[in-house]
Amino acid sequence: MTEMLPPGSVIGILGGGQLGRMLSVAAARLGYRTHVFEPAANPPAAHVAEKVVTAPYDDAEALRAFAGGVDVITYEFENVPTAALDLLESLRPIRPNRRALAVSQDRILEKDFLSGIGLTTAPYAAVDDDESLEAALAHIGTPAILKTTRLGYDGKGQARIMDRSDAPAALAEMRGAPAVLEGFVTFTREVSVIAARGLTGEVAAYDPGENVHVGGILSTTTVPATLTPGERTDAVLLAARILNALDYVGVMGVELFVTAGGLVVNEIAPRVHNSGHWTQNGCAVDQFEQHIRAVAGWPLGDGTRHSDVVMENLIGNDILKVPAIAREANAALHLYGKAEARAGRKMGHVNRIRTSG
Amino acid sequence: MTEMLPPGSVIGILGGGQLGRMLSVAAARLGYRTHVFEPAANPPAAHVAEKVVTAPYDDAEALRAFAGGVDVITYEFENVPTAALDLLESLRPIRPNRRALAVSQDRILEKDFLSGIGLTTAPYAAVDDDESLEAALAHIGTPAILKTTRLGYDGKGQARIMDRSDAPAALAEMRGAPAVLEGFVTFTREVSVIAARGLTGEVAAYDPGENVHVGGILSTTTVPATLTPGERTDAVLLAARILNALDYVGVMGVELFVTAGGLVVNEIAPRVHNSGHWTQNGCAVDQFEQHIRAVAGWPLGDGTRHSDVVMENLIGNDILKVPAIAREANAALHLYGKAEARAGRKMGHVNRIRTSG
Repeated sequence: MTEMLPPGSVIGILGGGQLGRMLSVAAARLGYRTHVFEPAANPPAAHVAEKVVTAPYDDAEALRAFAGGVDVITYEFENVPTAALDLLESLRPIRPNRRALAVSQDRILEKDFLSGIGLTTAPYAAVDDDESLEAALAHIGTPAILKTTRLGYDGKGQARIMDRSDAPAALAEMRGAPAVLEGFVTFTREVSVIAARGLTGEVAAYDPGENVHVGGILSTTTVPATLTPGERTDAVLLAARILNALDYVGVMGVELFVTAGGLVVNEIAPRVHNSGHWTQNGCAVDQFEQHIRAVAGWPLGDGTRHSDVVMENLIGNDILKVPAIAREANAALHLYGKAEARAGRKMGHVNRIRTSG
Repeated sequence: MTEMLPPGSVIGILGGGQLGRMLSVAAARLGYRTHVFEPAANPPAAHVAEKVVTAPYDDAEALRAFAGGVDVITYEFENVPTAALDLLESLRPIRPNRRALAVSQDRILEKDFLSGIGLTTAPYAAVDDDESLEAALAHIGTPAILKTTRLGYDGKGQARIMDRSDAPAALAEMRGAPAVLEGFVTFTREVSVIAARGLTGEVAAYDPGENVHVGGILSTTTVPATLTPGERTDAVLLAARILNALDYVGVMGVELFVTAGGLVVNEIAPRVHNSGHWTQNGCAVDQFEQHIRAVAGWPLGDGTRHSDVVMENLIGNDILKVPAIAREANAALHLYGKAEARAGRKMGHVNRIRTSG
């Protein structure tokens, strides 16, 4: 058995958005303090963390001071610059590890990795220019989707190619960045598995949630998902295979397409995941606490679901619905404390608990 | 309809213990920030509040600065000195109001108030000296319990009088403080109602919890309590009567004895209450959020219980059980981040969720 991080220890979190905020609260619930590193001023996590370091990721002095004040480092997003990670890793353990980050930062590395451990992904091919795009389209066909290999999320850095005439415009949207062409996958539904692996190698997974995206952004997650028992088992085993192959420590979100031919891995996120927010009101140990448990060397929670939940994101002006939602029975609101509601900005979410009564 | 406190507003909390800590987290979940006023250094709430003011309650300058930084003031304990409240009240609204505080700060005022609205309490009489104690014992009989009228909690400032020969020692334990002699109540069980009243006067109550005390300190709360339907209804109506009579805004804990002759009010606490911690894992809106909702002018959550829960306090060395509890299914830990485990000190609690499956 590994050592549990002593009570009162400090967990460093890279990134101060809503995920960092909810990680901070979970860490406090287990008796830990948190320091947050975030370039932007007044981030959501600042309201609940013991300390916030406001500095860019190329400020070596700030990174050193941050590392000096914490016992272990984790992160709320996968696009932390490599040089910052190199420096931090020389000072404190980073969990999940660098390999998980490297794989998930690059769509081609990610798909190579997933294929390499025997999992199915969408057909894909690297694209740098007109010529490689032409070759990729010949191989994959249309419709297809062109994505930058790095730094894309919530539908940004993506362009659909419905037929070959769309190709030049799609390539222009990549703005010269390395890209990957992915074939469309015909799926009946999208699900995700939120899984965790502890320091000792134990794995625990939550029941898969069924996701609905609107405009490339997650809108709702419903648990339980509509899956056959076989699909449910496959989804969880597949997630466990990914975690074990990466010697992973922490929570990971694994997005899957359910197809007639089986499960296809869409992408992985080496962190707590929006599609796991339902666990806050469906489980004794939610994904945020599960992540902190893993990072702090605790035994994992078992992931049992005590209630069915529908999670709905509150995006942009959805925040105006809060007074009405506040009056609903069995609706648990989670707001992120963001001052300004911009279009597409995640302002909060609501977990609607379905009781059997 | 009243105004809801705008998102991003600051709620001031007097007291930085575990109740203040959990209030801070709940406020954050609704998009608010918190500032905590606490004389002691490094209080539990400091880890999750945006700001902490460390100063004694007689530091007028610190109180003024604190009030200047917040939009509304609430508190986690009822023994805030009167002069501090006078100053704060001149600067910002205090919720719950001063009357609730005055009543609950003094056992005689409290019992006079409760009797005055037609509720049953233990028989009681004021005691200042040998003579008044003698008269009180003649009226109430033995066994009885002598308590200081103010500042008692968790069994402190109390002395049992099993027969008259115990009287001098009991009085000595009061150290000259005004006291009240209370008759013993023969009860089958102790329950408490956690109830809330909003700014508009709406009242909501959670299902009563059944409490077991050990050594004068709450050990467990079990929900649902073993009550007849009539007792359950009486308990909730009685709590509502108290809240309405005080024009109360916020959450109150009402401790009751269940007797053959009906419900007897033991005491009231004008704040979130240890016996309401189960709501964190049994309800969509827990007592901490309910209190913040009331204080911030939100509609109240309806208090529906989605799961049955047994809450167990982790006191002193109970903290050593944490690694074992961490392995239990459906056990939700809540630790307070206190550095040192002293005998009788509340270090955390665990909510064990009972699933029907």
